[in-house]
Amino acid sequence: MTRYKHLACLLSDRIEQGLYRSGERLPSVRTLSSEHGVSISTVQQAYHLLEEKQLIVPQPRSGYFVATHKATPPVPALTRPVQRPVEVTQWDSVLELLSSRTSGDVMQLGSGMPDLTQPTLKPLWKIMSRLAQKQQTELLNYDSLLGVSALREQVARLTIDSGCQLTAEDIVITTGCHEALSVSIRAVCAPGDIIAVESPAFHGTMQTLRGLGIRVIEIPTDSVTGISLEALELAFEQWPIKAVVVVPNCNNPLGFIMPEARKRALLALAQRVDAAIIEDDVYGELAWDYPRPVTLKSLDMDGRVLLCSSFSKTLAPGLRVGWVAPGRYRDRVLHMKYIGTGSTATLPQHTVAEFIRQGHYLPHLRRMRQVYQRNYETFSCWVRHYFPCGICVSRPQGGFLMWIELPEAFDAVRLNAELREACLQVAVGSLFSAAGKYRNCLRLNYGLPMNEQTEQALARLGTAVERAMQACSSDRHQAEQLLAE
Amino acid sequence: MTRYKHLACLLSDRIEQGLYRSGERLPSVRTLSSEHGVSISTVQQAYHLLEEKQLIVPQPRSGYFVATHKATPPVPALTRPVQRPVEVTQWDSVLELLSSRTSGDVMQLGSGMPDLTQPTLKPLWKIMSRLAQKQQTELLNYDSLLGVSALREQVARLTIDSGCQLTAEDIVITTGCHEALSVSIRAVCAPGDIIAVESPAFHGTMQTLRGLGIRVIEIPTDSVTGISLEALELAFEQWPIKAVVVVPNCNNPLGFIMPEARKRALLALAQRVDAAIIEDDVYGELAWDYPRPVTLKSLDMDGRVLLCSSFSKTLAPGLRVGWVAPGRYRDRVLHMKYIGTGSTATLPQHTVAEFIRQGHYLPHLRRMRQVYQRNYETFSCWVRHYFPCGICVSRPQGGFLMWIELPEAFDAVRLNAELREACLQVAVGSLFSAAGKYRNCLRLNYGLPMNEQTEQALARLGTAVERAMQACSSDRHQAEQLLAE
Repeated sequence: MTRYKHLACLLSDRIEQGLYRSGERLPSVRTLSSEHGVSISTVQQAYHLLEEKQLIVPQPRSGYFVATHKATPPVPALTRPVQRPVEVTQWDSVLELLSSRTSGDVMQLGSGMPDLTQPTLKPLWKIMSRLAQKQQTELLNYDSLLGVSALREQVARLTIDSGCQLTAEDIVITTGCHEALSVSIRAVCAPGDIIAVESPAFHGTMQTLRGLGIRVIEIPTDSVTGISLEALELAFEQWPIKAVVVVPNCNNPLGFIMPEARKRALLALAQRVDAAIIEDDVYGELAWDYPRPVTLKSLDMDGRVLLCSSFSKTLAPGLRVGWVAPGRYRDRVLHMKYIGTGSTATLPQHTVAEFIRQGHYLPHLRRMRQVYQRNYETFSCWVRHYFPCGICVSRPQGGFLMWIELPEAFDAVRLNAELREACLQVAVGSLFSAAGKYRNCLRLNYGLPMNEQTEQALARLGTAVERAMQACSSDRHQAEQLLAE
Repeated sequence: MTRYKHLACLLSDRIEQGLYRSGERLPSVRTLSSEHGVSISTVQQAYHLLEEKQLIVPQPRSGYFVATHKATPPVPALTRPVQRPVEVTQWDSVLELLSSRTSGDVMQLGSGMPDLTQPTLKPLWKIMSRLAQKQQTELLNYDSLLGVSALREQVARLTIDSGCQLTAEDIVITTGCHEALSVSIRAVCAPGDIIAVESPAFHGTMQTLRGLGIRVIEIPTDSVTGISLEALELAFEQWPIKAVVVVPNCNNPLGFIMPEARKRALLALAQRVDAAIIEDDVYGELAWDYPRPVTLKSLDMDGRVLLCSSFSKTLAPGLRVGWVAPGRYRDRVLHMKYIGTGSTATLPQHTVAEFIRQGHYLPHLRRMRQVYQRNYETFSCWVRHYFPCGICVSRPQGGFLMWIELPEAFDAVRLNAELREACLQVAVGSLFSAAGKYRNCLRLNYGLPMNEQTEQALARLGTAVERAMQACSSDRHQAEQLLAE
């Protein structure tokens, strides 16, 4: 990123954080130049950029002012899902999203793909190649059902950062976090059971519940503090809920980190009603603040939390190396692991273990946290600039996912059909609800490189959203007229 | 293998095939020497080896004669399992078998591990290393839900040999055959349903059925012609069976290849009762006769066969690359694949695709067929030599598994506890029955290198079996005496 772009992002960030309020005068070009040690022209270029994005307006002879009409959009309010267990739907839409994943010419704004272009990932390739050169037959053979022990030891060590005290024996390696979630759900539930989830919730989890014949009750969720414990408690009183699936750290799709006090309260509630907790921590290592937030697992005293994670978001999804710390459900998890895949591919496990052992993992994580945080700043600038007013946007505290809420009447599913033709892919909100709610929402990925191409894609998306919003408000207008006649 | 060992094996093979009958005089040393173009001493050494193994006996001044007491053991008779649906048990024993899989000091006679030491496997390492050196980010990314298309194309082409006409779109790549079977079962059945299986049947399939809450009816199976169609038809009349799982080619554990006419009859039966067929062909490519036997899938006209296979037995299990051709159940299989693992590790898929594309696969297969067939000859010599009389032994037509039936009263589970201490691992027969039948049977793996170590292990196993047989017959004797008193 060039200097002026960096400065522009910094300023837009300050505007977003309310340091410069709507309508307020911004520092003079000269002041900024000496404050940041950059040239006058760099500051001017930065201001021009912000002006182009309609974040600031020039007043002749007075300098620049924060634009009044493009304030930071508010965060989405507490969600209000259907308050009873339902069967999960939406498989067709998920399949559609997945199918577009491998089309090279489609701009993947809706996937959960991490940035795989960073130099800190290079040693991974080297290790992989060297392991292959060694030609040890054990790398081609079946691995232990638990997974490669060298990897389990490294994983156990990594979990210390999230407050856990686990040993290699407490870890079961899985084929991605997907399998970790799948075996965990099957370990604690039988078909016909009810599971509670955040609303919105990761579509992969939802589809797993669907596939296993488990009913889902969606719990209202706040985009800043997480699942509503009050609503969850009420649901427990009303229904025989077996378990809760939550993503408390860098939530998918909302991006929040649940405050620790609320984590403790959730665990206490689960203990009181004797429910299992399936904790998806796949984005947890990507929290922007260091040290990273604690897991529910680290607070768990009686083994009721099944902590699921993987290296898919922090390293690379194609490795398919995930893991679960199943607590008291270990035996059942092992059985489910055995019947699902037998064991996980051996070489990728050794590769990851070696990458961590050689000390490449933590520097890589540090870099990715910075990359995604900076991406977020740029991306949210663009969203503010290219999207129409009247939207709510999540404020992620880590990871690389953003949730955008459009007006109630908006139909993102219809929009999506239009976007497909424009080779743009977004994740439609309804994927994240068992009952297909949140048709007026989108989930976007800012893990992609923040280049011109991405900006253009976002500009096209913003235009399409604006057009669709106008269309739906004129639809409503017509409908009202018809009713009045 | 040295020349004399090779000759010894050849001779023992002829004895087994009945070319030299029990008590018959064998050719003179001089005759054999000129017939096989080997030295006199080589023939003498071969005869000494066979004598040691008690296959032949020397008569002073008359030469060598086939020993009368060590004739080829008969094959096991048609099995007689429980004739009603049962819940699968035996998980603990399977777990025990799996746990010993990675102990380096245990002689793995019971696992399903292929020989990974052959030179025709070398290019696999090279390809893997080169792919890693190329550093293409697509190899680290999520792959299509169907699997890497280059691999699917190669797989579709390979299936032509088994009589199929499939395209890349008909194939779904899975994490080993394990996942192929698992998604297939989940695609056609719901918990509480009944599935028919061969008896004995692969324990992995059984445990999958157990884990999914599906009841199993075991069908009598002949060790030469396969599942009894008559018994299967009766079962269909009596119970609402949803599907049949069979291993018609190089059956695990019995080793038979179902005659083509019986394959057709099985398919016709499935059509009549509208049941799905899950066909496990994981050993099918290792049939000794070329061209390889046809699959049920190749005879299937209405898409009711789900053909499952992998490269675990033909290349290497640690790759975890399998596949399923799901026929009319494609959508459901894709859903189950998605919820199980999301997608399969990307690099191993590209590695296998490239290995086949470069033309290494078919030569490797040819070699492995020869290796396993020769291994079988040696191994069955040893079994005849070191095991007591009164046993039945399967006559595999491919693969690397042998099924040994001991007298009814024999308890292989008890024997197994003893063997553990001697660092010997076998697969106890009861693993292969839902209800824990076949405690008097063992499955052995002759895929291991046929060296002195393996021979010694088999010798120790034979001694332990003999001791246990004597103990159980003296137990029975005592019991009879007690009854008589």
